[in-house]
Amino acid sequence: MNAELLDGVLSGDFRALARLITLVENDSPEAMPYLRVLYRNTGRCFTVGITGAPGSGKSTLVDQLTGFYRRQGKKLGIIAVDPTSPYSGGAILGDRVRMQSRSLDPGTFIRSMATRGHLGGLARTTGDVLLVMDAAGFDIVLIETVGVGQDEVDIVQTAHLTLVLLVPGMGDDIQTMKAGLMEIADVFVVNKADHPGADRVDAEVKALLSMTQRQDGWTPPVVRTIASQGQGIEECGQAIESCREFMQKSKFHRERTIAVQKDRLLDLARTRILQELLRDRAIEERLADLARRTLARDLDPFSAVEELLGASRLRKTAAEE
Amino acid sequence: MNAELLDGVLSGDFRALARLITLVENDSPEAMPYLRVLYRNTGRCFTVGITGAPGSGKSTLVDQLTGFYRRQGKKLGIIAVDPTSPYSGGAILGDRVRMQSRSLDPGTFIRSMATRGHLGGLARTTGDVLLVMDAAGFDIVLIETVGVGQDEVDIVQTAHLTLVLLVPGMGDDIQTMKAGLMEIADVFVVNKADHPGADRVDAEVKALLSMTQRQDGWTPPVVRTIASQGQGIEECGQAIESCREFMQKSKFHRERTIAVQKDRLLDLARTRILQELLRDRAIEERLADLARRTLARDLDPFSAVEELLGASRLRKTAAEE
Repeated sequence: MNAELLDGVLSGDFRALARLITLVENDSPEAMPYLRVLYRNTGRCFTVGITGAPGSGKSTLVDQLTGFYRRQGKKLGIIAVDPTSPYSGGAILGDRVRMQSRSLDPGTFIRSMATRGHLGGLARTTGDVLLVMDAAGFDIVLIETVGVGQDEVDIVQTAHLTLVLLVPGMGDDIQTMKAGLMEIADVFVVNKADHPGADRVDAEVKALLSMTQRQDGWTPPVVRTIASQGQGIEECGQAIESCREFMQKSKFHRERTIAVQKDRLLDLARTRILQELLRDRAIEERLADLARRTLARDLDPFSAVEELLGASRLRKTAAEE
Repeated sequence: MNAELLDGVLSGDFRALARLITLVENDSPEAMPYLRVLYRNTGRCFTVGITGAPGSGKSTLVDQLTGFYRRQGKKLGIIAVDPTSPYSGGAILGDRVRMQSRSLDPGTFIRSMATRGHLGGLARTTGDVLLVMDAAGFDIVLIETVGVGQDEVDIVQTAHLTLVLLVPGMGDDIQTMKAGLMEIADVFVVNKADHPGADRVDAEVKALLSMTQRQDGWTPPVVRTIASQGQGIEECGQAIESCREFMQKSKFHRERTIAVQKDRLLDLARTRILQELLRDRAIEERLADLARRTLARDLDPFSAVEELLGASRLRKTAAEE
């Protein structure tokens, strides 16, 4: 472990931060000792997941909320895991220019993450990146994702609070919300509130909310914004802060935190076991052989996995202990 | 194992099929012996993943393709993992009526799947459901998903062939496609081809395709349809069949099949290990304790997981062998 890199991260140096996050993203074994040490310095950062369909204005809202928190003197991190985000590469010119001006601010750290090829899932990697940013002293981290799909839901659930962005004229998309995001939204934002149909989206969300009762007793507010003009941002920021205060006082949320932590440990355990399994070269060859035999229908995959686990170093090591 | 249930599935009885799939979906240990036996009867079914944004007309196209294959006398299965699909519950009246008429056809089996709460991931569960349908003698299975998010991509990749549905006027969505679905699409369909902007979508996709060269040498065709009127369905079905023939002759695809199978076995191994871990009651208590200690920052989660794995029955059992 490089003491300079560790100190750099702990003192919030952006170059050190970027270097360590790259190690974390690459699942490098080098990252592990840092994560272990840094963990003790975490627990202060508040994380907000921001999700919505492509084109709903997530990046513009993230940009405006960054302004909101910067005016309060807060240190702010942004993680973009949305392939359409200007922060992660897919964007039109105006967005890119805005992003660049933001990235010159020494109180704002921006990191985009690739959405594919993470061993053990993107949600875990995002969790580890959050750990590093937390230890580096950020007050707030905003995580931007496209709001459909299990993996996005998992990522958003690594955040303390989830903001769901809606826009007028979504039509069928409200159906999708019902099925998935409705349950996880702590704050709703109707963006592009000057477009026709804003009243309808607002009314639909409120109607859906009135039919459900959350276990924690919180009623998600519906805030209207025109993010591109900075309108409604103060109200949006206040809604986030109100929800944060509510959660911090809530017994339900303290208990939920333990349940979430248990899930994280299990997820970590699963990844750890797989890594240990693959470290053994003989297993790799065995795996190719088993793949061929199962494809030929000489063997079913469930029996194949038992063979594989029986032969693994994990078990052998354990037997030698 | 119930011999009647097994025979029912193997002879393609829909009630037996539905019963076994429910066991599979619930991750019931009862399902395992059936999956082991049925596996030897698989390998004949061809699977097509159909994906696209909400409102792009996936269900209507699925319905029309069902007609296409039924006219050829094929036995057809449909798995809907799209929360906006009429098959999985979220739909407008017209869709529901169409679904009901289709579900009366004895040559078509429809199954919708919940998108949350699957231990080990929805993709694995979908894979097991496919296994059962394959063994039950279906010629074709269509899998319908909403096309954003890692989990959806994983599900689609359990299919032999992926069809991506586009509609005119998507705007920003093409950006999303570029980042994710573009790489996995084997056939493109521009649906609602009578809407303004159809030429533009068509041209954009072709431009993107001309910039990339697939490793297998296949050039994904772009087919135009008006699924609601049954137009272009024949061409769409032919495009699927051409791609299927190409893949079956391709050395690249034979090799890829082995790589995919290795991934599946590893994924199965990971789930198996986790299940074995949780079977031990003492581990459950240990886990709650570790969650509390890590939340208090007395211990980092990585060391916690090592403690957990060290205490697991998996290791103990191995040591006793």
